[in-house]
Amino acid sequence: MHITDIIHKKRSGKVLSKEEIDFFINGYVDGSIPDYQVSALLMAIWFNGMNAQETTDLTLSMVASGDTVDLSGISGIKVDKHSTGGVADTTTLVAAPLVAACGGRVAKMSGRGLGHTGGTLDKLESIPGLSIEQPMDVFQKFVNTIGVSVIGQTGNLVPADKKLYALRDVTETVDNLSLIAASIMSKKIASGADAIVLDVKTGSGAFMKTVDDSIALAKAMVDIGNLAGRRTVALVTDMNQPLGNAVGNALEVQEAIEILQGGHPGDLRDVIFALSSWMLMVSDLAENEDEAMEKLEKSLSSGAALKVFSEMIKAQGGDPLVCEDTGRLAKAKNLISVKADKNGWITEMENAEIGLSAMLLGAGRQTKEDVIDPAVGLWMKKRLGDEVKAGDELAVFHVNDDKNLEEAVNRFKAAVKIGSSKAEEKKLIYKIVE
Amino acid sequence: MHITDIIHKKRSGKVLSKEEIDFFINGYVDGSIPDYQVSALLMAIWFNGMNAQETTDLTLSMVASGDTVDLSGISGIKVDKHSTGGVADTTTLVAAPLVAACGGRVAKMSGRGLGHTGGTLDKLESIPGLSIEQPMDVFQKFVNTIGVSVIGQTGNLVPADKKLYALRDVTETVDNLSLIAASIMSKKIASGADAIVLDVKTGSGAFMKTVDDSIALAKAMVDIGNLAGRRTVALVTDMNQPLGNAVGNALEVQEAIEILQGGHPGDLRDVIFALSSWMLMVSDLAENEDEAMEKLEKSLSSGAALKVFSEMIKAQGGDPLVCEDTGRLAKAKNLISVKADKNGWITEMENAEIGLSAMLLGAGRQTKEDVIDPAVGLWMKKRLGDEVKAGDELAVFHVNDDKNLEEAVNRFKAAVKIGSSKAEEKKLIYKIVE
Repeated sequence: MHITDIIHKKRSGKVLSKEEIDFFINGYVDGSIPDYQVSALLMAIWFNGMNAQETTDLTLSMVASGDTVDLSGISGIKVDKHSTGGVADTTTLVAAPLVAACGGRVAKMSGRGLGHTGGTLDKLESIPGLSIEQPMDVFQKFVNTIGVSVIGQTGNLVPADKKLYALRDVTETVDNLSLIAASIMSKKIASGADAIVLDVKTGSGAFMKTVDDSIALAKAMVDIGNLAGRRTVALVTDMNQPLGNAVGNALEVQEAIEILQGGHPGDLRDVIFALSSWMLMVSDLAENEDEAMEKLEKSLSSGAALKVFSEMIKAQGGDPLVCEDTGRLAKAKNLISVKADKNGWITEMENAEIGLSAMLLGAGRQTKEDVIDPAVGLWMKKRLGDEVKAGDELAVFHVNDDKNLEEAVNRFKAAVKIGSSKAEEKKLIYKIVE
Repeated sequence: MHITDIIHKKRSGKVLSKEEIDFFINGYVDGSIPDYQVSALLMAIWFNGMNAQETTDLTLSMVASGDTVDLSGISGIKVDKHSTGGVADTTTLVAAPLVAACGGRVAKMSGRGLGHTGGTLDKLESIPGLSIEQPMDVFQKFVNTIGVSVIGQTGNLVPADKKLYALRDVTETVDNLSLIAASIMSKKIASGADAIVLDVKTGSGAFMKTVDDSIALAKAMVDIGNLAGRRTVALVTDMNQPLGNAVGNALEVQEAIEILQGGHPGDLRDVIFALSSWMLMVSDLAENEDEAMEKLEKSLSSGAALKVFSEMIKAQGGDPLVCEDTGRLAKAKNLISVKADKNGWITEMENAEIGLSAMLLGAGRQTKEDVIDPAVGLWMKKRLGDEVKAGDELAVFHVNDDKNLEEAVNRFKAAVKIGSSKAEEKKLIYKIVE
């Protein structure tokens, strides 16, 4: 078999066989196929696509390129969730303890965030003392006893994805449905969960800008999961504005805790409940959404979910008292109020620019080597469609270092567009793909 | 400027600016842009193409990547010819002295053949003693006094093409009109001729299989040449069968000399005369084809063209007596007659397979390191459309080493298809593009 024949076949719009896909992935990982042939193939895939069978074959070939996690030490159905990435999206920190409090088994291994703002691991690490590095047997013990643990990926999971993602990132071949689906699902499948709930973002701030493309991606991933023997469901949810109010690591933990304390009704809470209800259903802990919602409300109002989160923090070495007093989280030195310049309605909130604004304050990484400041970030006070008057507070910036403050403020204000009429309201959840 | 933006732009079907093309070529040659980004861009170009302006910009950027030859030491209009590559295509060895004998100035620098069979340089080197390595001043002196010299490329001509061609070859991005046109024309322009006559092959044995594609390639190259200030003409000629009868280095020299002696009327001679007449016209040595043809016939029948060839051979250190006695050329030990198995008409002659058959005898290189045996090859006795009876001689194989003989014979016989009815005759010259 020759890689040039495989490139030629895909370039000509033909379907690759499982053997050809295995040859490509194995050869890339073992170094016998060089980057420059793989990037030509990726571009041919970008143009001609892959069908459902090719996409599943690619995913399973990527899974087979490395270790897979054995979660058999955990009793019951192990459930995982994954988001395709959004701003102010702190759903995991709430959904995981909520589902665990209802009897779920949430064994979650996360990678580091690839975007401008911190990922789940970065947010958790902003809790004083908490460690996301736990041995596999200890991790499984936590899930068995508390119901939940969130740790960093260990071992050599899906090395093919690491190499492919790095190459796609510099060859303009990231935004292809099959390549995105295979990248996400290979990691989920290798992580060993029995059931997977996916949050596929849609809108101006998402990989997929249109609802149709997002549904197509959701379907591709659900197909792969089910073909690989994992119960998989995807929710297509809105990312035309930041989901919650906080952007920044300790700030997002604070918002999560406040939701677990019963606060912050709104979009973030609604998406958390929708995801959590599906996590219960795929775990056989609820027969339908009504039953699931009832259980979730109860575990929230009783304080059971908050207690689970506090136990998880304690088990992983963190300060559990943050759950009672978020004042114990890292705090920035200065609070700066950012105000509206004119009257009107908020017609647009550019996620990427808002994320970049928080990154400029130190809440995210520009390069892999950058160190995150857990305390900094911004807390938004308005949402899409809100009426504002000149001088109204749009956000509070939490700042430790003034260096990039001006640029951060300017970017934020440019990202929050104020128009002369109220824009049409967006849906929050567009589609459930089972 | 970022190469990823350039890849994105071409991937999206947009037109690249001259500055973007320069950035890409300069960055690739100086090593700041790696192979894997260039191969992604090449594949995007393969899918989305380049317009005439982009193709010319690419060509001129490639020319500027290295040295250019200054032929100002030669008086008059310097004319070059180039073929896109065919089997049994020994046109240069005849056309060059023929045009020189009519007063033309043929200063030709050739590269080594990329295909299975030897190139012009390999053929010339089969003449005992002849050297294709000549200092530039000596080369110019030869052209001034004899009218013609053919040498190997010297200096660092078009390094961008060397790198790009090697990458295209292993990433399935060779067969793109703009990339082919830029590759050929950059070398022609860098070689310094004032006028260029191109022989664009069309048919089953050519890069371009259809007449339309071949005309498009011819137009692209003529446009580039004229925009770069060189008088350029292209002839689209047939390559549905080997052009001449001989395949193999000394054998092709023999066929060329026999044509210069007045022999071998037929397709090869007709294409040589067509190319030569245009070489005279673009050199202002004939006003029209009739006048050109008359001059050419005269220089052939008078023996002037053969004398020029003999002088060129002598000047470059070779044995000029081969022009009187081709028996002085290298001869193979064994002659093997290959015969038809059945009655019928020759309906197909697969060029690539016939070339490969000669290569198996030692007439070409499988890898760059292979050494060519000048004596070996094959001499075909039949052409497309000829009627044959079982037992008729199809070709004589000139063999020194039996190792691959059986495979060579089998491939040749499989490549020469004998059908039950005469196939439609092909044209020889499809189009002149000025």
